[in-house]
Amino acid sequence: MAGIMFKGTAVELKDDLVLRWSRIQARVRAAGADALVVAANVNLFYVSGRVFMGHAYIPAEGEPCFFVRRPCGLKGGRVFEVRKVEQMPDILRDIGVPLPKRVMIEDDDLSHSDWARLAAVFAGSVAGNGSAVLRQCRAAKTPYEVRVMKLTGARQSEVIPRYAAVFEPGMTDQQWSVEMFRVMLRAGGLGHFRIAGYTMEGFMGTVLAGDNGGAVSPYDFALGGAGLHPSLPVGQSGVRLAEGMSVMVDIPGIFYGYITDCSRIFGVGKLAQKAYDAHQVSIDIREAIMAAGKPGVRCEDLYALAVRMAEEAGLADCFMGLAQKAKFVGHGTGIVINELPVLGARSKDVLEEGMTIALEPKFVIAGTGAVGVEDTLVVTPDGMENLTPCAPEIITL
Amino acid sequence: MAGIMFKGTAVELKDDLVLRWSRIQARVRAAGADALVVAANVNLFYVSGRVFMGHAYIPAEGEPCFFVRRPCGLKGGRVFEVRKVEQMPDILRDIGVPLPKRVMIEDDDLSHSDWARLAAVFAGSVAGNGSAVLRQCRAAKTPYEVRVMKLTGARQSEVIPRYAAVFEPGMTDQQWSVEMFRVMLRAGGLGHFRIAGYTMEGFMGTVLAGDNGGAVSPYDFALGGAGLHPSLPVGQSGVRLAEGMSVMVDIPGIFYGYITDCSRIFGVGKLAQKAYDAHQVSIDIREAIMAAGKPGVRCEDLYALAVRMAEEAGLADCFMGLAQKAKFVGHGTGIVINELPVLGARSKDVLEEGMTIALEPKFVIAGTGAVGVEDTLVVTPDGMENLTPCAPEIITL
Repeated sequence: MAGIMFKGTAVELKDDLVLRWSRIQARVRAAGADALVVAANVNLFYVSGRVFMGHAYIPAEGEPCFFVRRPCGLKGGRVFEVRKVEQMPDILRDIGVPLPKRVMIEDDDLSHSDWARLAAVFAGSVAGNGSAVLRQCRAAKTPYEVRVMKLTGARQSEVIPRYAAVFEPGMTDQQWSVEMFRVMLRAGGLGHFRIAGYTMEGFMGTVLAGDNGGAVSPYDFALGGAGLHPSLPVGQSGVRLAEGMSVMVDIPGIFYGYITDCSRIFGVGKLAQKAYDAHQVSIDIREAIMAAGKPGVRCEDLYALAVRMAEEAGLADCFMGLAQKAKFVGHGTGIVINELPVLGARSKDVLEEGMTIALEPKFVIAGTGAVGVEDTLVVTPDGMENLTPCAPEIITL
Repeated sequence: MAGIMFKGTAVELKDDLVLRWSRIQARVRAAGADALVVAANVNLFYVSGRVFMGHAYIPAEGEPCFFVRRPCGLKGGRVFEVRKVEQMPDILRDIGVPLPKRVMIEDDDLSHSDWARLAAVFAGSVAGNGSAVLRQCRAAKTPYEVRVMKLTGARQSEVIPRYAAVFEPGMTDQQWSVEMFRVMLRAGGLGHFRIAGYTMEGFMGTVLAGDNGGAVSPYDFALGGAGLHPSLPVGQSGVRLAEGMSVMVDIPGIFYGYITDCSRIFGVGKLAQKAYDAHQVSIDIREAIMAAGKPGVRCEDLYALAVRMAEEAGLADCFMGLAQKAKFVGHGTGIVINELPVLGARSKDVLEEGMTIALEPKFVIAGTGAVGVEDTLVVTPDGMENLTPCAPEIITL
């Protein structure tokens, strides 16, 4: 049906959109609903291949409709130009689509005000959280999305080894980060870092040097950092990079609208032996999880595996932070950095084929800084494949 | 009272927070409510001077309470560590604060899910949109905020003239923008560009070259640009900068958690005469609005003045865009880029002392590109003062 829908869209993407719609529709039907309305940018991008101003209406069966408030690339029989969202029911009636008795809208993505406006458009029939359906669908990437994530991971992996060349002795964490941001943007990174949830914020990534690796942040990242200003308390703190500090460079790869998450550790000269040891434990945890992870495996079991290995190495006290410890070792990534699944203690998520997971078993060594690898892995029928296969060792500056 | 509240916070900021609280409280009382609960990061920053994980509870009278879910810099008698938002009513009871009969929460800033969770905490007493109250308060900056905005504008103004030095013939808009972003970040810009509304997105700013100045964008900026990818259709499009193109550089100044908005035009060699003429009309509009603008003046009248001047210059057809025209010539700016007031056709906003407004009368000249100045102005009792006083003329590359 996308052949009719999206004139001008590449065939490969069209076919993939049809697959995405069918996955969404199966979940809409499973939820006992008749339709799902999409308004959030990340979900519009997921269902149409582009961000546009407007809404998508996905019935439980049949072709989706697209209501666009400004001209965009979308063209086709079921693309309608509208001035306001209130026109949707009349247009649906006109084209013979029965109005839904139970419609899902995006509870987690819309502001309450916009939710209420949309709920009024479908008065009396709003039922169920469309955000949850879309988040579930987006967790397991389609074949097209896996290819895009592979390309994204390859580009990020190609950029990371180039960061050492823009380091200069005497720099602060911020000065070096600016040079690394430039390297990433020159390599084609789009820069704009999408995070789900209005309490999460961040710029292009974090560069955590020395004890700033263990600083408490109000944001729910694995490690936070104090940041440069109380208006954005995350990331580099302005500290001067000095001999013996580890520096965790966590600048996501953002290409084609998708995000891979890979961090690597740079050492300013020689680090304490404990840092190298803990870093190796992180690599071992990655290998163990990659060996254990396949469709059907419970995410909480993978988290427990990581915790157990950290304990066995005598490093429980500094695993995933010091004063503030993250309660997870991995998270889905894709259109946003914090997708499903969560590899955490009370996670009910189960691995599915196509899930792309940022695995980040990290340690904070007091007096040295953060160590550990972060990689984006894709779940295949045979196990997990690393999409960010750059060298995992600590890079000495 | 902030003397007790915020140990360690600079006296100047403490005193200003007390002023902000009193302004909020006056509006809460005027709305007939007993309290306002704050959860969104930008509003937490406004009421406490920092982003933290948690909530602020501002009663219509008396001292605010701060409920923090992770340690942050806030310390004092009314700062409470909590695990979850549901603990708020018990703590309020314990300290003798009567539970509100009518409490406002942030309808425009919280997701519906989080809104519903908070509404359940104060079941039966939620009444009124706290976002509107906070937006109104934030529109008219306090004396401390005006000083911060002046510092921000001065720093942005100092950066802009340095962009020409990083231009090289043969660059694309994107290549030049990366170099300009670096200049801004090296000058201390925080980079993270805050925009209100889940449908708005952007990276550090936009650089619109040639006909990309008139490209339609799904985002509600004055001018958009096509962008580099359908996942983020705004800003530079990858076009190679060529003789005769105007380039609108609109990279906000983001310092201290506040944003000033100033764009300047760079010409690649000599532009068509119409571009210089239209640019001068933009400067004339700015001067006319600065002369007319003072407390009590209606924003729609200032918009009408701008439209009239564009018409009189015979430039109505290319004012504020070509195919897609913005319906405003200015907008408040501060903690986010799109604050109140709006200088638009149906705006009900009226100028108040302390408002900081990005005024951007822009023209798009087909075959050349965007021209016009954008400056951030503050409303004083005597008129409007320019916080971004760098030279307004087109800079020839």
